[in-house]
Amino acid sequence: MNVGTRNLLLLSSSRLHGHGYLEHARSQLEELFNAKNVKTVLFVPFALRDHDKYTATVRAALQPWGYAVEGLHTKPDFGQALREAEAIFVGGGNTFVLLKQLYELQLVELMRELVLQRGLTYVGSSAGTNVATRSIHTTNDMPVIHPPSFEALGLVPFNINPHYLETDLNTEHKGETRDERIEEFIAYHGRPVLGLREGTSVRIQGDKATLLGERHAKLFKADGSSLEYAPQADLSFLLQP
Amino acid sequence: MNVGTRNLLLLSSSRLHGHGYLEHARSQLEELFNAKNVKTVLFVPFALRDHDKYTATVRAALQPWGYAVEGLHTKPDFGQALREAEAIFVGGGNTFVLLKQLYELQLVELMRELVLQRGLTYVGSSAGTNVATRSIHTTNDMPVIHPPSFEALGLVPFNINPHYLETDLNTEHKGETRDERIEEFIAYHGRPVLGLREGTSVRIQGDKATLLGERHAKLFKADGSSLEYAPQADLSFLLQP
Repeated sequence: MNVGTRNLLLLSSSRLHGHGYLEHARSQLEELFNAKNVKTVLFVPFALRDHDKYTATVRAALQPWGYAVEGLHTKPDFGQALREAEAIFVGGGNTFVLLKQLYELQLVELMRELVLQRGLTYVGSSAGTNVATRSIHTTNDMPVIHPPSFEALGLVPFNINPHYLETDLNTEHKGETRDERIEEFIAYHGRPVLGLREGTSVRIQGDKATLLGERHAKLFKADGSSLEYAPQADLSFLLQP
Repeated sequence: MNVGTRNLLLLSSSRLHGHGYLEHARSQLEELFNAKNVKTVLFVPFALRDHDKYTATVRAALQPWGYAVEGLHTKPDFGQALREAEAIFVGGGNTFVLLKQLYELQLVELMRELVLQRGLTYVGSSAGTNVATRSIHTTNDMPVIHPPSFEALGLVPFNINPHYLETDLNTEHKGETRDERIEEFIAYHGRPVLGLREGTSVRIQGDKATLLGERHAKLFKADGSSLEYAPQADLSFLLQP
């Protein structure tokens, strides 16, 4: 696998309290796109039901910053559109719906190959971040649709939990906490999970991974322990297969 | 389908703030078991990893009330044990893990037949309530395991969201609210979902369904509207196919 050209930005969320849509990630997106001279972004809106409206929302955010946005769903040939794209942005919504669509459209292998072998720039947010990882086992979403597999694009060999947050210790609610859910995944799979708080993201350049944003990220390790990483932390070790 | 003998109790949760394990449901369980003169309960512990420990927890709760508890996992022949059981209790944990196990052990059809055709008493809690319904699409759990289908036992023809709660409107968190998740399910499937708050349950006797517990339940209707039902409400209309 030639990962020398891998150019990814995996956002915890597109919205952050107190900011406009994608506003908190503007400088991160600009750095990512400028690294490959991207002018037009192909948006993948499949995680939500209204593809036109969703694409318009993303266009309204990115166009003022100088990037054109096109919706993959408007293209006559999805495979060709992806092969010709300068960058793809896979938006959030429901992770199960998104992955099911990618399998049904037979785009999983193609997207993996384009990003890993041909350096296609990839932005994921929330569900779009889940599908970029090894599997969607660590999504927070409700399983409203049954995909044929939870295995995903595998652009990185670890799992991410987007919208990560600590559970309020004063709650009287008896449902599982987020940490308990993630630890349950690890008990079954023995693989690490990066808990990405809203406002943070992981930037991947080739074989280098860096934590971006103004908050820490919590790494749940395969051995059951956990560790907090500060903004700008080097997370490249997570890219080791 | 002969549902004249259907004898079910579907609990939102086994734990309620301020109460011991299953304590809040004691009178509900006693009424259910006494209706069929149940003395021994066959516990299905597959939603958690430690089956012995889980069975011991349930035994410690039910034995002082006069019911013997046996673990299905200790039986040499699961099918035979189910066919000979007076009542089964399917405990909570991870809904995906539980359903995957039931499919792998080929118990889905058998349990459905025993409960619906032969009046086997069924108690479900949390994940055990999810699998009792039409499908597990409305679980809150993390999808740590991929089951071959989300279709479940279908002991009732609607969906339940256990541990239902309103999202704190003051939160700065941008993940979906519980209501948004349930509405997303309805948008895709057009089927009603009963939001069961902790401490509440649905009692089903033949073709009669009643809301038990001291809190309201929120019904998300197929048309997108919602309605609150008070304790002791008659929910039999949800049993219409």
